[in-house]
Amino acid sequence: MTDRITATRPDLLPEPTLRRLPWYLAYLSTLRNAAIEYISTTRIAEALDVDPSQIAKDLSFLGIRGKTRIGYQVGALESALRDYLGFDKRHNAIMMGAGSLGGALISDNGLQRYGLNVVAGIDLNPTLIGTAINGVRIFSPSDTEQLVRELDVKIGIIAVPVDSAQDVADTLAGAGVQAIWNFTPSRIRVREGMVIANTSIYSHLAVMYNRLQSLNKENKK
Amino acid sequence: MTDRITATRPDLLPEPTLRRLPWYLAYLSTLRNAAIEYISTTRIAEALDVDPSQIAKDLSFLGIRGKTRIGYQVGALESALRDYLGFDKRHNAIMMGAGSLGGALISDNGLQRYGLNVVAGIDLNPTLIGTAINGVRIFSPSDTEQLVRELDVKIGIIAVPVDSAQDVADTLAGAGVQAIWNFTPSRIRVREGMVIANTSIYSHLAVMYNRLQSLNKENKK
Repeated sequence: MTDRITATRPDLLPEPTLRRLPWYLAYLSTLRNAAIEYISTTRIAEALDVDPSQIAKDLSFLGIRGKTRIGYQVGALESALRDYLGFDKRHNAIMMGAGSLGGALISDNGLQRYGLNVVAGIDLNPTLIGTAINGVRIFSPSDTEQLVRELDVKIGIIAVPVDSAQDVADTLAGAGVQAIWNFTPSRIRVREGMVIANTSIYSHLAVMYNRLQSLNKENKK
Repeated sequence: MTDRITATRPDLLPEPTLRRLPWYLAYLSTLRNAAIEYISTTRIAEALDVDPSQIAKDLSFLGIRGKTRIGYQVGALESALRDYLGFDKRHNAIMMGAGSLGGALISDNGLQRYGLNVVAGIDLNPTLIGTAINGVRIFSPSDTEQLVRELDVKIGIIAVPVDSAQDVADTLAGAGVQAIWNFTPSRIRVREGMVIANTSIYSHLAVMYNRLQSLNKENKK
């Protein structure tokens, strides 16, 4: 196993690098499926439209260097990236809101493949409480603190209506959750030291609609 | 209706502005639910942790100005924002991949409230073809071009495995779709003039895991 790559673990990686690493990972899995064994920075750069020196720099953050003229061994680099990104570990999470979006996220098995382990869902709706979505049991809001403690939940996912987003975040923080993944378009404040990730699906829609609109104006000229 | 606000429509709004506008919108709907009628830039700034001058600038892009000492009328500003952002229109979209993530996105009625109208789903899986998810019919990949043309589809949403993401994007582009919303961690290339939006849910996970890890290292010190 001379080709095994072990990534070092620097404390805080720059966010742009962290966002590019999954691109590399996705590309590597495509290469592996195509039975390609070695890949150069130049080829990755061409495929992903990222500067080759940027790729070398990103990977060097992980302590990974390619071999001259050969490049990186695909399988080994893929494993090192998955390991580094924490996708092979299980990260316990609780889904706050098991309605339309929350229920949909619970149903997405992709999240599980990326290490997210949703252990419970919370909803106000009495018809949901006691049921299960994709094997995940739904509980009442009053059970939140106990579930977080007993199931060792580190991540709280917020998929509730905008109005309750901050209250739910406060409950999660009080219960001892360390990170909040906010799917609402609401801005959430957390205490210093907590991790917050915002995935504002609807903001992306706004950008897309605006670009489409100006595109169609252009075409009419 | 003196308070009605009509937003002007500049061609291309800066992306950071476009990403902030939905925050304002979410906050305004919270205020409206709390029966608050007027709001100042300062208050919005405090609530959302955005610089007041930035908010005034963002809203002025839309041709919206507050009144001195009174601020903005909540309902009118909310309507103007929704209108400006295109959330009140219907934007026809096709969902490429109706498996775990694609199916989940089809099930999210929130997207519909933000103007996204998924008119059909496409999947390779023969057990899915002919069925419906949340009222959306699932078709075979060979039906893509015809559906795009006949149903006037402008947006293609990609929720297929990483390996097929580029091929699916090429099919969509060939069929005449104008915008691609890519949910895969794959980097997709489109021809100049097409709109592309990337929502890489899994990249956000990578950032969150990394932050959590360094947080826990810190705590152990």
